[in-house]
Amino acid sequence: MEAEQDQALKERAQRVIPNGMWGHMDAARIPVAYPQYFARARGCRLWDVDGREYIDFLCAYGPMVLGYGDPDVELAAERQRREGDIFNGPTVRLVELAEAVVGTIAHADWAMFQKNGTDAMTTCVSIAREATGRRKILVANGAYHGAVPWCNPYPAGSTPEDRAHLVRYDYNDAASLAAAAETCRGDLAAILVSGFKHDVGKHHELPMADFAGAARQLCDEAGAALIVDDVRAGFRLHMGGSWETVGIRPDLSAFSKAIANGYPLACVTGSERFRAAAARVFVTGSFWYGAVAMAAALATLDKLGGIGGIAIMERMGQRLRDGIAAQAAGRGIRLRQSGPPQMPVILFEDDDDRRKGWTFCAEALKRGTYLHAAHTMFLSAAHTEADIDRALEATDAALGVVAERFGWQ
Amino acid sequence: MEAEQDQALKERAQRVIPNGMWGHMDAARIPVAYPQYFARARGCRLWDVDGREYIDFLCAYGPMVLGYGDPDVELAAERQRREGDIFNGPTVRLVELAEAVVGTIAHADWAMFQKNGTDAMTTCVSIAREATGRRKILVANGAYHGAVPWCNPYPAGSTPEDRAHLVRYDYNDAASLAAAAETCRGDLAAILVSGFKHDVGKHHELPMADFAGAARQLCDEAGAALIVDDVRAGFRLHMGGSWETVGIRPDLSAFSKAIANGYPLACVTGSERFRAAAARVFVTGSFWYGAVAMAAALATLDKLGGIGGIAIMERMGQRLRDGIAAQAAGRGIRLRQSGPPQMPVILFEDDDDRRKGWTFCAEALKRGTYLHAAHTMFLSAAHTEADIDRALEATDAALGVVAERFGWQ
Repeated sequence: MEAEQDQALKERAQRVIPNGMWGHMDAARIPVAYPQYFARARGCRLWDVDGREYIDFLCAYGPMVLGYGDPDVELAAERQRREGDIFNGPTVRLVELAEAVVGTIAHADWAMFQKNGTDAMTTCVSIAREATGRRKILVANGAYHGAVPWCNPYPAGSTPEDRAHLVRYDYNDAASLAAAAETCRGDLAAILVSGFKHDVGKHHELPMADFAGAARQLCDEAGAALIVDDVRAGFRLHMGGSWETVGIRPDLSAFSKAIANGYPLACVTGSERFRAAAARVFVTGSFWYGAVAMAAALATLDKLGGIGGIAIMERMGQRLRDGIAAQAAGRGIRLRQSGPPQMPVILFEDDDDRRKGWTFCAEALKRGTYLHAAHTMFLSAAHTEADIDRALEATDAALGVVAERFGWQ
Repeated sequence: MEAEQDQALKERAQRVIPNGMWGHMDAARIPVAYPQYFARARGCRLWDVDGREYIDFLCAYGPMVLGYGDPDVELAAERQRREGDIFNGPTVRLVELAEAVVGTIAHADWAMFQKNGTDAMTTCVSIAREATGRRKILVANGAYHGAVPWCNPYPAGSTPEDRAHLVRYDYNDAASLAAAAETCRGDLAAILVSGFKHDVGKHHELPMADFAGAARQLCDEAGAALIVDDVRAGFRLHMGGSWETVGIRPDLSAFSKAIANGYPLACVTGSERFRAAAARVFVTGSFWYGAVAMAAALATLDKLGGIGGIAIMERMGQRLRDGIAAQAAGRGIRLRQSGPPQMPVILFEDDDDRRKGWTFCAEALKRGTYLHAAHTMFLSAAHTEADIDRALEATDAALGVVAERFGWQ
């Protein structure tokens, strides 16, 4: 059996983990062909527990921005580890990293660090409420901002009060944003926006200038905080923060995933106006001051900037996109590739049940290319032209199967 | 100047971090004599950035249960790191650790893993609400369960709705617990209790059998979940969970701090009855499936059990307690040492402003012994009799200063 080890682990897990797995990495959410358990990784290559090798376009759902096991990041982490990680207080790495973040993120006058993207988003919301003395938070329909009751996309285990002060709008729709803000008159604490629109299973959209400008203006007029959730997009669109691409500066931003190339870290950055409120909000965690993840972040930001990592990812993503577009066009397959090339999503037309999408991905997987049919995918700076070209051989064959099975052309 | 490096870092931090630091490790909360920044650590020894060495009785506020840089834990982590940490799914370490936890924690039929103690507590509450379809959570006055709006001891940045369904009782007071439960009739989701009462600045109390029994009985009668927050006490009182000391088994428990000897990890364990609800609650984080922290946890649990770590910590804590008691008695100093010996708090009588307590600690600090005047302290399995005896020299001199300054005897 091809996936013998994987199957054995799934069975063991069923006994000691509810339903065998939980959260976004639960392989039960994706086709059975996908492995649940992995053994090792290097660069953009990934091996599952049955020894099958993949060119990876998920990058651990985002964190691996320089590639798995990047030697420079690992060296920096190892050097710090020899001195220690957590103590009764932070190390010099905290100050160095806060300085580096303030020097990198365009709107940032200060920084604080956490462990989860959700920690960073919750902290942003608390700072906005503390600074304004107000309660309402505008959140886009379909946006993901974390997995705790106030923002969880799945309400199981939460109470209506957990999200009592959320007001919904549609991303990139300035009129809907204004209408939502209007309902909050005098009680608007913040407008929350993702770095770009990357809702699962939907076409991705970069922020439009009129929408971004309207968000900034509404916050300025109301004295509310503009919060960019850059947890997923951060350090892949623009080193200064994703909304630099539209020339709009938020008041608060949340980063995580890619900031330390896989080491657990999150970050909140803010402008001067929100500094005092940030100092008044009590947020903390046992491992938030850990120096190893901070050393990894320093090395990650330094290297990403130094090698022009974002441009590499963009170029590799464009090469993949162009190749797939040509392959699909040649077969008359209608699909749409959206999002920035370095964070793509590929959706087939007339595919509400996602059968075409998952067939495509499962066939590519068989041929050693790990794609996802609904979630944002991720390029890393470790992807080379040779990797992309090899992946394109897999997608070409996979599109052939899709054409055959679903009768295109 | 003695703390030149520390002072320089504090000044740099003021520019790029709100108020220079945040959370429980903010040295502005403790006397100026205390260093904010640390350089390295080994075993139970800690060095600050100015090269001053301390015997540490805070253990990074709990995580360092085997001592800083424990060679067996570091070796296990390093071996896993060579293969990788995070991927597009977990590794075999997840299954091994869930099995180990289920084999160690008395009430556990399953386990799930997170990064922060707060993550674990929030997950427990969500599971209890999902399982029962109810909303009310009983929480002890003064107890700390995390730093997000639903449980944050400081309300800045939260809304009243965040804690709409919390009902308060007094720890170790069965009558107050029953009265609180009575107000929830038909809507009681869970009773939340700490492994023992370890509120900051208060005498610590082990759970009393009648209180623990009453909590269990109230939950059984109401069909609610008994949740033990073992984030702070876990793996220092009893390997099977802190309430094993009173023979009462909870339905859900939260662990973190000591589970992986400093590597960022948290854990929720539960009984069979709550397995299905746990599978329905969506909780996740980018780094929650990281294999390095899980490898560290496997090594930590294995070694702690193997060497009888809890007994070592208890013995060393008792040696420290007996020594301080004799030193205080000899000078007629009235202080009270409470909590289990391995997680002590030392409070002086007639010391509401804590001046005696902090004088004692600051004088001990000068002599190379790091204590805390309000927070739970922690022994580790790396503390030896020689360490305790050296610390006792420092406490003896420090008590001498207290006696002189505050006129005892």
